[in-house]
Amino acid sequence: MMRFRLTLEYDGRGLMGWQRQAHGPSVQEAVEQALFAISGEATTVHSAGRTDAGVHASAMVAHVDLNRPFTPFRLMEALNARLRQAGARIAVLEAEEARADFHARFSCIGRAYEYRIVCRRAPLTFEAGLAWRVPRPLDIEAMAEGASHLVGRHDFTSFRSVHCQAASPVKTLDLLEVEAIGDRVVIRARARSFLHHQVRSMVGALVHTGLGRAPPAMVRAILEARDRQLLPGNAPPDGLWFTGALYPQ
Amino acid sequence: MMRFRLTLEYDGRGLMGWQRQAHGPSVQEAVEQALFAISGEATTVHSAGRTDAGVHASAMVAHVDLNRPFTPFRLMEALNARLRQAGARIAVLEAEEARADFHARFSCIGRAYEYRIVCRRAPLTFEAGLAWRVPRPLDIEAMAEGASHLVGRHDFTSFRSVHCQAASPVKTLDLLEVEAIGDRVVIRARARSFLHHQVRSMVGALVHTGLGRAPPAMVRAILEARDRQLLPGNAPPDGLWFTGALYPQ
Repeated sequence: MMRFRLTLEYDGRGLMGWQRQAHGPSVQEAVEQALFAISGEATTVHSAGRTDAGVHASAMVAHVDLNRPFTPFRLMEALNARLRQAGARIAVLEAEEARADFHARFSCIGRAYEYRIVCRRAPLTFEAGLAWRVPRPLDIEAMAEGASHLVGRHDFTSFRSVHCQAASPVKTLDLLEVEAIGDRVVIRARARSFLHHQVRSMVGALVHTGLGRAPPAMVRAILEARDRQLLPGNAPPDGLWFTGALYPQ
Repeated sequence: MMRFRLTLEYDGRGLMGWQRQAHGPSVQEAVEQALFAISGEATTVHSAGRTDAGVHASAMVAHVDLNRPFTPFRLMEALNARLRQAGARIAVLEAEEARADFHARFSCIGRAYEYRIVCRRAPLTFEAGLAWRVPRPLDIEAMAEGASHLVGRHDFTSFRSVHCQAASPVKTLDLLEVEAIGDRVVIRARARSFLHHQVRSMVGALVHTGLGRAPPAMVRAILEARDRQLLPGNAPPDGLWFTGALYPQ
């Protein structure tokens, strides 16, 4: 048996998210079906993050065990050919042999997300479903100030979905930066792990501030209240991208 | 009657290009139909460039005359609502009142294109149809050197489609730059006007050089030969984007 580490890119539009679901297509199901087609083995693919419906990945890390011998390159090529044939907007960017104790989820010590916003009146064409369109200009400095209150170790109860299954609401946010490039705003977040909906909840609060509906200090007040009721609302899944997973060494 | 200048973004996938065609959907037809729906007027929309099938625009400039009074903002909003309703991946980014002597095509003194390449083995997901996937690394310095031979005033017969209707093959290429950003390569071209297929022909020759199949000096040799037979082949339309039109003042 050999363990492989895969780096995947996927377009979340029309998908139920990473995890296998009874009621619709998922990334996990598509990749497991492609693996079965090329190896005849019914396997489980484990990923660094389980993204929600409509969320994308530019570099999701996953691992899988296979008995049939493949070189990493042949595995990547065969999987991509099969995924393409199946019409899936999923691609394997890299495949490599992994140690038997490597686990895409449990070995992961850092996760990075990007949230993409386009500020304009016109509907999105190329980025429909891939970014959040905000029809008014955003105050980037206010958003950056709001973001600064969230960086560090905090109880993120206010930024957590009611369905979150994490044992503790305390997380350490290593990075939350806001960058404007023309009419685009990118928010980058990095942490060892995130609570369910945490990034979308934080972005929702930052955009609220960016639109001038609340001062940046309100972000701190929401955090300190530990009360999800105070949150102005989540950002939609469209703009959320899983951009990287970090492992020891 | 009032003349409006429009800045349009469109996704060329599935379209026959800018110009109205009997055998398939075009940008011109979609915009003229939307204009008819909101004004009841059968008008002709003129554009700075007539992009081919499968070619995209991030900022195409066009003009149209309407009798029914609209403010530019209401025209943009109504057109976008209608285009969206029709399922067109076309958006009006800007609308403004134009002088009666402004003509999107004939007043235009500069056109800019971008050609997008992604160097990787894996099939494209997000950028399928929006970039040219080249499965091997490109030698950017060789491509830049090849490009330098094309900048300036030359007879571009070798880089011209047999269907080109321009009176003269002599054009002045103001810019042809090659930039690598990670696994992406962007080639930017700027000129007063281009011959039919000129950008795709130039990119085809540069990629040939970038793959090491010919030295950069071959680009000059092809140019000087004034013989299209020497051209290694056009780049596909997928990666071509019309990115801007320049007007006096």
